[in-house]
Amino acid sequence: MNILALESSAKAASVAVCRDAFLLAESYQNNGMTHSTTLLPMCESLLANVGLSLADIDLIACANGPGSFTGLRIGLSMAKGLAWPEEKPCVGVSTLEAMAWNASMVPGAICCAMDARRSQVYNALFESDGRGKLTRLTEDRAISLEELFASEKMGETSQFLVGDGAELCYNYGKERGYDLVLAPENLRHQRAWGVARAALRFLETGQPCSGGALEARYLRLSQAERERRERMNAKQIP
Amino acid sequence: MNILALESSAKAASVAVCRDAFLLAESYQNNGMTHSTTLLPMCESLLANVGLSLADIDLIACANGPGSFTGLRIGLSMAKGLAWPEEKPCVGVSTLEAMAWNASMVPGAICCAMDARRSQVYNALFESDGRGKLTRLTEDRAISLEELFASEKMGETSQFLVGDGAELCYNYGKERGYDLVLAPENLRHQRAWGVARAALRFLETGQPCSGGALEARYLRLSQAERERRERMNAKQIP
Repeated sequence: MNILALESSAKAASVAVCRDAFLLAESYQNNGMTHSTTLLPMCESLLANVGLSLADIDLIACANGPGSFTGLRIGLSMAKGLAWPEEKPCVGVSTLEAMAWNASMVPGAICCAMDARRSQVYNALFESDGRGKLTRLTEDRAISLEELFASEKMGETSQFLVGDGAELCYNYGKERGYDLVLAPENLRHQRAWGVARAALRFLETGQPCSGGALEARYLRLSQAERERRERMNAKQIP
Repeated sequence: MNILALESSAKAASVAVCRDAFLLAESYQNNGMTHSTTLLPMCESLLANVGLSLADIDLIACANGPGSFTGLRIGLSMAKGLAWPEEKPCVGVSTLEAMAWNASMVPGAICCAMDARRSQVYNALFESDGRGKLTRLTEDRAISLEELFASEKMGETSQFLVGDGAELCYNYGKERGYDLVLAPENLRHQRAWGVARAALRFLETGQPCSGGALEARYLRLSQAERERRERMNAKQIP
């Protein structure tokens, strides 16, 4: 099964083509350019360079959140667009789980953290046996650094920190005496191989959906929605 | 410092652009296509996608062996060609060390192995503290599986196997009771980020060279040279 995997949920963007878990090709960039101008050209040049076309793709996998509202919409819109003409099956996966798969050869506790602004991180905790088995310890959540480090699991053992919120967590936790390891650059950020790997795990028990049914999982309201609610509450509009 | 890193020493090919150790972009493929047709287009699309040109590159890093004779010559020729017009400084690094850097967040013993045919692997052993410190335990060498597993170091502790010879080693060693872990697909093969990382390590004490001075380190004679020597010996030509 040929999988096209897309990742654009934070500042880094990447595209991968896998034959099952075998990585045929991956393209990654993290230079601050907007995904709306980079993701599709990356995908096009990646497929062209490996001599494949969209017709060769059997499944489209996409990180569906948590993450940047705009980033997620760019990735999911692209997945929907690519899936539509030939009605390709799709799988949306947790950004945080995909990130954990990329680091899953590191044995022990993996703390995935994305900078969610407003003193929060999008976070989930995982445990890896370092031999391909990855266990989820928490749900995906938006959580303050204070709450995150107050949880028992963070203090029990050394944490391997990945994601664009890793440094935030590192600085906060180091000051407070936690044993933390910052992932090196090649594993710090989201990469599309992890998205394909998480999709394969999902397919062990789940069914793919249509492109139309792919949905973002934001975990929080967008700024516009939040402010609208606040305005409505202030005016006591029902 | 912007580094352009090239890796084409085995079946996988990759190109990375780094700002020091920060990974700006990486493109990787492992679909069996020849590097002579893939490496330069990968590099072109990578630079174009991140909005950089060759003029923005301060250093060219290239894996210089061990590896496939043809693969190494393709990568090194390309590095020389790209370096020449503006006389960019270059660094050639060990393919095996670059591979170890990619896996350096896995604490413990790292066994890098490339399939060298004729029942041998190109191999070097490393030790990582899982926190960014990587120690070389052996020189790069061409070694038979029998010799490799006869060495004390292989039996002392669990080995994390990377490279296109990893599966060869795994199958050989598992039968004989060694504790071995096969790297997952995202870290199994050479990737250009490791080349940039190894070049940065080299620059802590060493000086870059000109493109003209870049040289391959084959470790063994090529088949043509070996057969010529055999013919010459048979004819007893001095």
